[in-house]
Amino acid sequence: MISSDNWQKIKLVICDIDGVLTDGRVGYGAEDFLKFFHYRDGHWLKLAMRAGMMVGWLSGRKSRANTLRASELGITFLKENCTDKLSSFEEILKEYRLLPEECLYIGDDVIDLPVMRRCGIAVAVADAVPELDEVADFRTAAPGGHGAVCEVMHKLLAGQGKLDEILERYRR
Amino acid sequence: MISSDNWQKIKLVICDIDGVLTDGRVGYGAEDFLKFFHYRDGHWLKLAMRAGMMVGWLSGRKSRANTLRASELGITFLKENCTDKLSSFEEILKEYRLLPEECLYIGDDVIDLPVMRRCGIAVAVADAVPELDEVADFRTAAPGGHGAVCEVMHKLLAGQGKLDEILERYRR
Amino acid sequence: MISSDNWQKIKLVICDIDGVLTDGRVGYGAEDFLKFFHYRDGHWLKLAMRAGMMVGWLSGRKSRANTLRASELGITFLKENCTDKLSSFEEILKEYRLLPEECLYIGDDVIDLPVMRRCGIAVAVADAVPELDEVADFRTAAPGGHGAVCEVMHKLLAGQGKLDEILERYRR
Amino acid sequence: MISSDNWQKIKLVICDIDGVLTDGRVGYGAEDFLKFFHYRDGHWLKLAMRAGMMVGWLSGRKSRANTLRASELGITFLKENCTDKLSSFEEILKEYRLLPEECLYIGDDVIDLPVMRRCGIAVAVADAVPELDEVADFRTAAPGGHGAVCEVMHKLLAGQGKLDEILERYRR
Repeated sequence: MISSDNWQKIKLVICDIDGVLTDGRVGYGAEDFLKFFHYRDGHWLKLAMRAGMMVGWLSGRKSRANTLRASELGITFLKENCTDKLSSFEEILKEYRLLPEECLYIGDDVIDLPVMRRCGIAVAVADAVPELDEVADFRTAAPGGHGAVCEVMHKLLAGQGKLDEILERYRR
Repeated sequence: MISSDNWQKIKLVICDIDGVLTDGRVGYGAEDFLKFFHYRDGHWLKLAMRAGMMVGWLSGRKSRANTLRASELGITFLKENCTDKLSSFEEILKEYRLLPEECLYIGDDVIDLPVMRRCGIAVAVADAVPELDEVADFRTAAPGGHGAVCEVMHKLLAGQGKLDEILERYRR
Repeated sequence: MISSDNWQKIKLVICDIDGVLTDGRVGYGAEDFLKFFHYRDGHWLKLAMRAGMMVGWLSGRKSRANTLRASELGITFLKENCTDKLSSFEEILKEYRLLPEECLYIGDDVIDLPVMRRCGIAVAVADAVPELDEVADFRTAAPGGHGAVCEVMHKLLAGQGKLDEILERYRR
Repeated sequence: MISSDNWQKIKLVICDIDGVLTDGRVGYGAEDFLKFFHYRDGHWLKLAMRAGMMVGWLSGRKSRANTLRASELGITFLKENCTDKLSSFEEILKEYRLLPEECLYIGDDVIDLPVMRRCGIAVAVADAVPELDEVADFRTAAPGGHGAVCEVMHKLLAGQGKLDEILERYRR
């Protein structure tokens, strides 16, 4: 159970990309590597940003698809080629003057373990490797790339008491 | 339970696109943004149009894939970049001289709530966000992009007593 | 239950394409319309052809993807733009001097009903519309595009007592 | 049950490609044939290689997507157009001076049976044809292309007592 206090502290959402914002599958044979991002994940990241949250994506790889999708959504930062995610995380904390407990992290593989151990709220997508259960606060119901991030933003906005205000706009 | 009278009134079917006519996933890296439309959804929208129904698509985004698929099917109208779906809905009512209860709407996200609250029959796809249950008459069994629209057209044509006539053609 | 005699009679397998050999989803935005064919469906159609079966594909639409995949597999015939599948079926019977009961048909939508009513063995894919149950001998466990045709070829070769001979080759 | 001794012997992992490293579906209509490889399968093949394992891919077909993905991961060998997988397997044993029991093989179709009968550990993906159960030591929980290979590498590294060392790196 994540306490209301833990939710309240979160100022930055960090998402791994492949396997979290996508379903992990990469297409070979099109003009470029092909990846599918879920528009609903993007929509809810934007709702969270409008509510004051910062959003950063962290990937061990690099691809044009990542850049395209990130700039379309106007996220706070995109860091690629992060083979050591813990170092990247520490740089981010310095750069944005944040404490580890002010970050929520969504991951799917063992490479995400060190950051997940340190951040305030750690989330594993439904199809993440079993090792993440050691450190994850919860698993999403949806697998990566099929709305897992939308689901987390929903919980985060609810946990911070901001969901009703957002829904009010749509409850006209 | 939707009354026979409610079904009978429907003259226009409005579908959200991403997440309803597609599974919400958009491919980055091909020549253009890549989206998958289900041919069976298209086939049943055409069956509904031949039975006298109008069909319109309403999207918060814009893409060449939408235009291509819409013109292929010859739907009544395609409205894109509708960030405020309620305004678009009101324009449509004026333009086509329709009452709200003469419209059936299929949606998947909170942005669809205001229209779903007003229209005659409101449908949420299987994987829609939970908030839509406040206003949806039912959820489809199929998720968006996997035949959800075909399923609704089937129910609509049955509810209007037009399904048997259509099936008769194929029951030779 | 399909009798051994019914299986024995089959000389031609006719498959609908969209929704049967594919999952029904068509990609818009790549160089051309994008469709996914399952290599295992193709492999088992080839095993059936080597065992003496004829294989034909029948589609209400037309696409380069169909032609590419059909020629790759060397199937007996590909007929596209068949808006009236019953007429196409009757032409096929004449052209190949076959009786209706010598044909097995795999379909997914109401457009397939007239042929399914007449052919020897009628199969609906797992995600076919409910109306096909009126005439289908069985539904596959796999949905269209995910190995449904492989499954039917497996049953057909078993029903004709040819499966063991094929497996013998791989049981070295 | 696979004995600890069987796991210890394995020096080479051989994977079929279509249906094992992919979900078997091939896209027609893009610039080239389009296939999706799961980045997590690749990541765990790399973890296994760093732990001293050799990795080879064996396919009955040939495609540019295979070459691209194989060179990206730096696997030990890629053999395509292997219509007779048993001959290819025997060549591999000679070339790498290995015994059959030193190889683990992952397959999905009957063409894989002869190699699976001979190798030390034989694995079928979740959606493999039923015949593989005759010779497979186990089926994966994940279907081909959705993390099945990641799952096997996980079991292999655990069976060889190397998993904890790998995880230690991520448990900082």
